Amino acid sequence: MADIPARTELKVTTGPIRGSRKIHVEGPGGIRVAMREIDLEPSSGEPPLRVYDCSGPYTDPTATIDIMAGLPELRRDWIRARGDVEEVAQRQVKPEDNGQLGPDRSGGVQPFPNVRRTVLRAKPGANVSQMHYARRGIITPEMEYVAIRENLGRARRAEAAARDGQDFGAAIPDFVTPEFVRDEVARGRAIIPNNVNHPESEPMAIGRNFLVKINANIGNSAVASDVAAEVDKMVWSIRWGADTVMDLSTGRNIHDTREWILRNSPVPIGTVPIYQALEKVGGIAEDLTWEIYRDTLIEQAEQGVDYFTIHAGVRLPYIPMTAKRVTGIVSRGGSIMAKWCLAHHKESFLYTRFEDICEIMKAYDIAFSLGDGLRPGSIADANDEAQFAELATLGELTQIAWKHDIQVMIEGPGHVPMHKIKANMDKQLEACGEAPFYTLGPLTTDIAPGYDHITSAIGAAMIGWFGTAMLCYVTPKEHLGLPDRDDVKVGVVTYKLAAHAADLAKGHPAAKMRDDALSRARFEFRWRDQFHLSLDPDTAEKYHDQTLPAEGAKTAHFCSMCGPKFCSMKITQEVRDFAAKQNASADTFLAAESGMAEMSEKFREKGGEIYLPAAE
Amino acid sequence: MADIPARTELKVTTGPIRGSRKIHVEGPGGIRVAMREIDLEPSSGEPPLRVYDCSGPYTDPTATIDIMAGLPELRRDWIRARGDVEEVAQRQVKPEDNGQLGPDRSGGVQPFPNVRRTVLRAKPGANVSQMHYARRGIITPEMEYVAIRENLGRARRAEAAARDGQDFGAAIPDFVTPEFVRDEVARGRAIIPNNVNHPESEPMAIGRNFLVKINANIGNSAVASDVAAEVDKMVWSIRWGADTVMDLSTGRNIHDTREWILRNSPVPIGTVPIYQALEKVGGIAEDLTWEIYRDTLIEQAEQGVDYFTIHAGVRLPYIPMTAKRVTGIVSRGGSIMAKWCLAHHKESFLYTRFEDICEIMKAYDIAFSLGDGLRPGSIADANDEAQFAELATLGELTQIAWKHDIQVMIEGPGHVPMHKIKANMDKQLEACGEAPFYTLGPLTTDIAPGYDHITSAIGAAMIGWFGTAMLCYVTPKEHLGLPDRDDVKVGVVTYKLAAHAADLAKGHPAAKMRDDALSRARFEFRWRDQFHLSLDPDTAEKYHDQTLPAEGAKTAHFCSMCGPKFCSMKITQEVRDFAAKQNASADTFLAAESGMAEMSEKFREKGGEIYLPAAE
Repeated sequence: MADIPARTELKVTTGPIRGSRKIHVEGPGGIRVAMREIDLEPSSGEPPLRVYDCSGPYTDPTATIDIMAGLPELRRDWIRARGDVEEVAQRQVKPEDNGQLGPDRSGGVQPFPNVRRTVLRAKPGANVSQMHYARRGIITPEMEYVAIRENLGRARRAEAAARDGQDFGAAIPDFVTPEFVRDEVARGRAIIPNNVNHPESEPMAIGRNFLVKINANIGNSAVASDVAAEVDKMVWSIRWGADTVMDLSTGRNIHDTREWILRNSPVPIGTVPIYQALEKVGGIAEDLTWEIYRDTLIEQAEQGVDYFTIHAGVRLPYIPMTAKRVTGIVSRGGSIMAKWCLAHHKESFLYTRFEDICEIMKAYDIAFSLGDGLRPGSIADANDEAQFAELATLGELTQIAWKHDIQVMIEGPGHVPMHKIKANMDKQLEACGEAPFYTLGPLTTDIAPGYDHITSAIGAAMIGWFGTAMLCYVTPKEHLGLPDRDDVKVGVVTYKLAAHAADLAKGHPAAKMRDDALSRARFEFRWRDQFHLSLDPDTAEKYHDQTLPAEGAKTAHFCSMCGPKFCSMKITQEVRDFAAKQNASADTFLAAESGMAEMSEKFREKGGEIYLPAAE
Repeated sequence: MADIPARTELKVTTGPIRGSRKIHVEGPGGIRVAMREIDLEPSSGEPPLRVYDCSGPYTDPTATIDIMAGLPELRRDWIRARGDVEEVAQRQVKPEDNGQLGPDRSGGVQPFPNVRRTVLRAKPGANVSQMHYARRGIITPEMEYVAIRENLGRARRAEAAARDGQDFGAAIPDFVTPEFVRDEVARGRAIIPNNVNHPESEPMAIGRNFLVKINANIGNSAVASDVAAEVDKMVWSIRWGADTVMDLSTGRNIHDTREWILRNSPVPIGTVPIYQALEKVGGIAEDLTWEIYRDTLIEQAEQGVDYFTIHAGVRLPYIPMTAKRVTGIVSRGGSIMAKWCLAHHKESFLYTRFEDICEIMKAYDIAFSLGDGLRPGSIADANDEAQFAELATLGELTQIAWKHDIQVMIEGPGHVPMHKIKANMDKQLEACGEAPFYTLGPLTTDIAPGYDHITSAIGAAMIGWFGTAMLCYVTPKEHLGLPDRDDVKVGVVTYKLAAHAADLAKGHPAAKMRDDALSRARFEFRWRDQFHLSLDPDTAEKYHDQTLPAEGAKTAHFCSMCGPKFCSMKITQEVRDFAAKQNASADTFLAAESGMAEMSEKFREKGGEIYLPAAE
């Protein structure tokens, strides 16, 4: 890892992740799918292990990183080759786009220097969504890319591996084909969020029958704003495995911060447009109008945002259902719309104008992330009337979006005790026609602020197992403050392990390979392989070295838990050697006197041999 | 918190836990049950919240702490009043008890100064186990203490609270009576580990129908040994909520380290006697004998160890079943016995001498913790033939122990993917007649060394929900090194939240009170109450202050997530005010035009009011 300044003061972390190499798997039509390969020690006799890689060009030593210029446009030609988009002049940036109202224009940030003059939009009458292509039987390069990526470079013949898991009715294939991806997108069971104005993104799929994904939230706020820090957090979060990033910026410089993030992001970027719209009206929710909101959608659509969280399910009649809650409405977007509805005693314009919003989404291929504005904010409010009333409406809206061939995922809670988690998944599948579920946690208890990455990882792993397609991370700062760089890493790694635990329990055919490789390394005392195969090699090695810093300890056949004199792993090896030799089975074992005698002797002879000298 | 030296260099952390007071609830016969009371801000209008307290006299400002003298003997008179014990001279401490073999006696530690000359033992033919009393219909002071403790000071009338949970066939009462405790102990569904030679301990119960408990492991090793650090870790771990502590010391000074820990521990202490026995034979497993092991049991029984982990289920015929495993035998005790069995081609003496061991257990009231020496050490080995063959044997041994009226719990895995966790609980309940289950995690994936407190908290919360009575913590250093003070705290708090999530999901009638109190505090911006009600008030406040250090921010009605201009909680309050005023319901809401108009007006009037000045 190195902090490179490029030609700017914006620093991001680049360089390979310890112990692995960036590789590119070739696909049809010159597609090159980015993955990581972890090399194992020669003594292992094992080939390198391929793993899913979200980190983009930043971990590729051969790539030139220039934050001021942005990433290369990987999908540029794929998008234009379809011939259904046209170049139009980009909407003029207004001061209010950056929250600069009134005479005081201070506190601005440097605009992204390499800003585009023109943007892409569907030709009149055209629909450029992946779902639209899928439903017409077209397999796009994006779908080809996803298929190769989801297989983790496995060859078709490698499928044979016995399946072991409980998938609760999912349909995870042994091997992902481009046609399978197309079919899942066409059915609405998976989405590939990639705005035609975000050609820098590497295609990825969010769906119950693919690997479980995770999202990391970043963004400045009214009390803390620094564009450099947000770009750094974006690059840092994908380094550790964030599959998508949401820019939840509020306060000032929202437009410019987002431009810096989008131009430099290889993963899909999501936003909550109502946040920016609110800033445009000086923070007064009741002053929001459809026109201002619509203008904000177009502003963000042209910048290249890949999915919009839209709280169109917060309907006027549901609002009073939250009155008796312990924590009322905790969703920021949900409460903004609740306030607007109450102030005007009108139905939400997000609901009444939903088809107008669809027209915008299909012109750029932006996916809906239908927000759960009435999600429970405490254990006491879980699975209540307000929450499920909104979910039913999100189901209606899903059908409307699908009528327009627009990709949709559904956001879920929140705070839910373990015994009420499964019901959330089951109701979502039924109400929303298997559209991908995207949940925040859920947190399984309210009593551990400072540890909510853990209270929520418990719920996230479970709901991921039950069928949730993407898990929105929670950091240790949840409920307490804004996450810093370290919090972002802890949140991402925690959710990565929760998502992987879910893949394992679902029986994903590719998931267990990494656990087995790491466990073999552990059993054989290949310490470096154990570090490199872990989700966070740097932390694993650091912790090991705190007890046994000596270089020799990394090759010694013992660890600090048992010390050099005695090691259970070593004894097991002897058990294995004997059993292999005798081909012993539980039945014949006791009878094998000769074998026992022989082994008994062998043990006495080499009784001292399991004493290894301490490395230091 | 303050580090007090007392009259020694051994320092431990004392003083109240931030925001709470030590209290004692009076019981029959002068019993005083220790609890903590968390005071809430007057504005809350709520009474103090009582919480379970494992921290002992160390958090009581009125108690005098003298590590050199040890804790007062809370149970001394209860034990003697039963008239079934006699005082005998304590076994002489031998050099090998501290691993000091041969001429080199260096590296010793200071023996505990206030060592007792005599110890207690059951009179000939007597059985002093709580199970023995329970089965004869006797309610002991220990049972009275447990009953009050488990109710968290609730009065019987407070039971009415509606139950909400899925307990998978557990029998959690609305209110715990001493008779209920007696009955659970008599049936073997719960244990109260308290050796007659550990009168310093505050009685606690481990059972499926009581609050889920957690254990913290400490202990020096051959590569790191420091008695002061171990005593400090014990006090530190109970401060944050460890219900029992296991001293897993290996290498030297095992006897003296254990004496320091026992004399200063208010929680039950468990050990794995085979570890010390192995040191007595210079670490050569095949040199172990029943006589050496028996002598070690008596040595530790006289010191006051409350439960022994005994791997009597590792039978000769099961050993070859581990040969094809990815990680073989990972239990240290299990591999020691496997090596002994193979070396002598004999059945394990722990199994053949089990009834002799029972005679020792009943003479001091030591509980069995039947070890799972063949537990899986990787996802690949979960729920295999070897693991369940051993579990069946642990079931047989449970029946033998119960024949002697000896308390028993059963140890469980290990590494288990989520979809295989429930089977572990179900098989244990069936094989072991509902004896309490005591599991390590389980870890739900192998790929996150450095984060195994989290991979295992997921499995621990789930298996706790399914019915496991005690969860053995895993620290971030698992698989990598020995936990330091910080690791111990993170491990304990992580397991505390997992155990609480399990209590919530089981529908324990007392569990949700704390979540609700904290969530009300969060909703009402009572920041200090939120910190104080959390499992780790210091960390919660520290994280908050990293973003908003100003003192005013702790009373401000906003947080750093949304900033001062907009707050969803504030809006919800307005929704609530309106709904309360209109007594609106989902049905009448739309119709209530007048109400809507009035409210609409009200909102416009006070439109500016939700702008709060930033605290700084």
